[in-house]
Amino acid sequence: MITTLEQARAADRADPLRGFRSRFRLPRGVIYLDGNSLGPPPVAIQARMAAVVAGEWGRGLVRSWNDAGWIGAPAKVGGKIASLIGAASHEVVVADSTSVNLFKLLMAATTARPRRGVILTVTGDFPTDLYLARGAASVLPGVEVRAVSESEIEAALDQDVAVLLLSHVHYKTGARRDMAAITATAHAAGALTLWDLSHSAGAVEVDLRAADVDLAVGCGYKFLNGGPGAPSWLFVAERLQPLLHTPLSGWMGHANPFDFLDAYEPAPGVGRFLCGTPPMLSLLALETAVDLWLEVDRAQVWNKAARLWELFARRMTFRCERHGFELITPTTGADRGSHIAFRHPQGFAIVQSLIACGVIGDFRDPDILRFGLTPLYLRYQNVWRAVETLYEIMESESWRKASRRVGGAVT
Amino acid sequence: MITTLEQARAADRADPLRGFRSRFRLPRGVIYLDGNSLGPPPVAIQARMAAVVAGEWGRGLVRSWNDAGWIGAPAKVGGKIASLIGAASHEVVVADSTSVNLFKLLMAATTARPRRGVILTVTGDFPTDLYLARGAASVLPGVEVRAVSESEIEAALDQDVAVLLLSHVHYKTGARRDMAAITATAHAAGALTLWDLSHSAGAVEVDLRAADVDLAVGCGYKFLNGGPGAPSWLFVAERLQPLLHTPLSGWMGHANPFDFLDAYEPAPGVGRFLCGTPPMLSLLALETAVDLWLEVDRAQVWNKAARLWELFARRMTFRCERHGFELITPTTGADRGSHIAFRHPQGFAIVQSLIACGVIGDFRDPDILRFGLTPLYLRYQNVWRAVETLYEIMESESWRKASRRVGGAVT
Repeated sequence: MITTLEQARAADRADPLRGFRSRFRLPRGVIYLDGNSLGPPPVAIQARMAAVVAGEWGRGLVRSWNDAGWIGAPAKVGGKIASLIGAASHEVVVADSTSVNLFKLLMAATTARPRRGVILTVTGDFPTDLYLARGAASVLPGVEVRAVSESEIEAALDQDVAVLLLSHVHYKTGARRDMAAITATAHAAGALTLWDLSHSAGAVEVDLRAADVDLAVGCGYKFLNGGPGAPSWLFVAERLQPLLHTPLSGWMGHANPFDFLDAYEPAPGVGRFLCGTPPMLSLLALETAVDLWLEVDRAQVWNKAARLWELFARRMTFRCERHGFELITPTTGADRGSHIAFRHPQGFAIVQSLIACGVIGDFRDPDILRFGLTPLYLRYQNVWRAVETLYEIMESESWRKASRRVGGAVT
Repeated sequence: MITTLEQARAADRADPLRGFRSRFRLPRGVIYLDGNSLGPPPVAIQARMAAVVAGEWGRGLVRSWNDAGWIGAPAKVGGKIASLIGAASHEVVVADSTSVNLFKLLMAATTARPRRGVILTVTGDFPTDLYLARGAASVLPGVEVRAVSESEIEAALDQDVAVLLLSHVHYKTGARRDMAAITATAHAAGALTLWDLSHSAGAVEVDLRAADVDLAVGCGYKFLNGGPGAPSWLFVAERLQPLLHTPLSGWMGHANPFDFLDAYEPAPGVGRFLCGTPPMLSLLALETAVDLWLEVDRAQVWNKAARLWELFARRMTFRCERHGFELITPTTGADRGSHIAFRHPQGFAIVQSLIACGVIGDFRDPDILRFGLTPLYLRYQNVWRAVETLYEIMESESWRKASRRVGGAVT
């Protein structure tokens, strides 16, 4: 247990992942606790982009679709991501955005269960998931969205449910759902499961095959560090691949796109869920970021994430207890992702003050402070320093005065 | 009229666009006639990508969504593209791929015309358009795709047609349809029009407002030079924006995405057709490429494209007439785009030979040779040299021998 700054520094010196920090480009003087929103750039991406623009694009020109392997990149990068989430390499493909992929898989799952007219999900999850569920239902006759509260999920899993859509780790609270147990319950009710792994892939151990998950989507720009708006990826369990179809039947999902046939024939595997031409610069940046993950001992990452989390929580209790922060992330490791979240009535102002002091976290309405704890580039002493900075803000004369002015909510 | 190489060189010296060639990165010794498939990189993209990775992403981190204006980039870059296609800046937004945008707009148009159950299109257009039309129809009850031949379009425009989907310039033949006349005919029949401008934006003059077009999509990576798989863009006429809805209702199309509300409220304008988080590296590369277009006198581009085309056609007649090439692109300027296409039974082998000699065109099944004529970086002498190279190949001893071996189709 780390109880002094010296111990935090010692933990950094002993950290088996300490070498990875220099593989990221991080601004001096900044403690970055928002890698759960946008990961920082791996150093290698600068050179990769230069090589892609000057070499693959500039010298190779259109030939690079074949010669540089661009055409196979969605499957290749998908295969690399597969290893992070317990999937087989031919079960994952990189394509489009998380939102578009949610729509594709919701449409595929729902039309594959024609006698079941319900997309079941929860209220308060990341909004785009619910928006896309409603969007899909809006065009499918007899299909509706049932959005229930957390505690009602199991009871709502009846014989009408075609697919259960859930985030694995909640984007605000950091609460992690029991993927294997919920998937088993859904299967017992005859429903498919679609998991949004945006806040868990690269954050916690994920084993889709062990949990017998049917479908999943995830984000490339958070814990994977693939760049702003990096392409998303999707997972379709091998057993389901021949049975599912997307109405987003673009040419890149065709069995033979370069035959330019009028008749659509879906690619045999997960490739049928590709749609249009992929944005190669963004996709190759993502590949470079994912390549870094392939070097890492994942057990060390999950272990360090837990230790960073515990250090943050403990220092908050020790330093900021009297300042009205309410921890809303579950304290049991298996029940959370790798970010930590607190409620505070002046959360927005506090996050702004932290950013002004070089500690970047983020704020989510109405009153949530969220801090991402990302072992590849964060040190224990960064966590220590972040909480000290928060403490100094809360104890400062200017903050006390400001707080009194807005009604003394922190007293 | 250019009838000698010296005249071609003189035309290059007098070319008001000659300064733009140095703004592109082109490999030495290559004549690039495939800018209609993938435009070459503008020189400025190298520095822009470096600045985005190191500065906006690396130093700005998540703050760049606001501080660097990333969140507004889809509308901003869309507004720049609008000027190239005769649209108002608030009628165009950059998003997703052309395929995904086709799906969104087909769904929006069809559901807005509930008493009309037909998506009308033609056979033999770029396949993804037909695939997405069928994909959209597959989930909409009572909606079907009517795919007719070119000559049957007008007769097929009956009171059942919700939307007419057509390419403006055909990807193989280069034939250009009369957008204004066909749109007027469609409107007279009560149908909406959706034009795919992938082979015309940046290739020929396009005036969507003058033609009273309803909807359009287009590509960023061809004549716009935005990079491999550059994001696509879509146009929705202002008068239709409040009436149309996409079931791809992702959070970026929400009126207030950062309120993270469970209830979806579409953005008031064309922004409702955004879906997920955009791939910023690819999108900002596209912006840099489009910025170059903003410097250009477009009339000079269309004029030079026509002259390059005429020079190519004339030199082909003069040099290669006896070698069995059949010109399939309309010869009247108003009836074509800015590429030229020929049929030849040994088209594939000829294109391969040309590429081996540094002249990059492309081949499209079953027998089509296609050459893009892109005024910003092509010289008249390049066109001259390209046809000379083709002539030398066709006249070479090795080609004659090879041709005899495969059955003498060129004799």
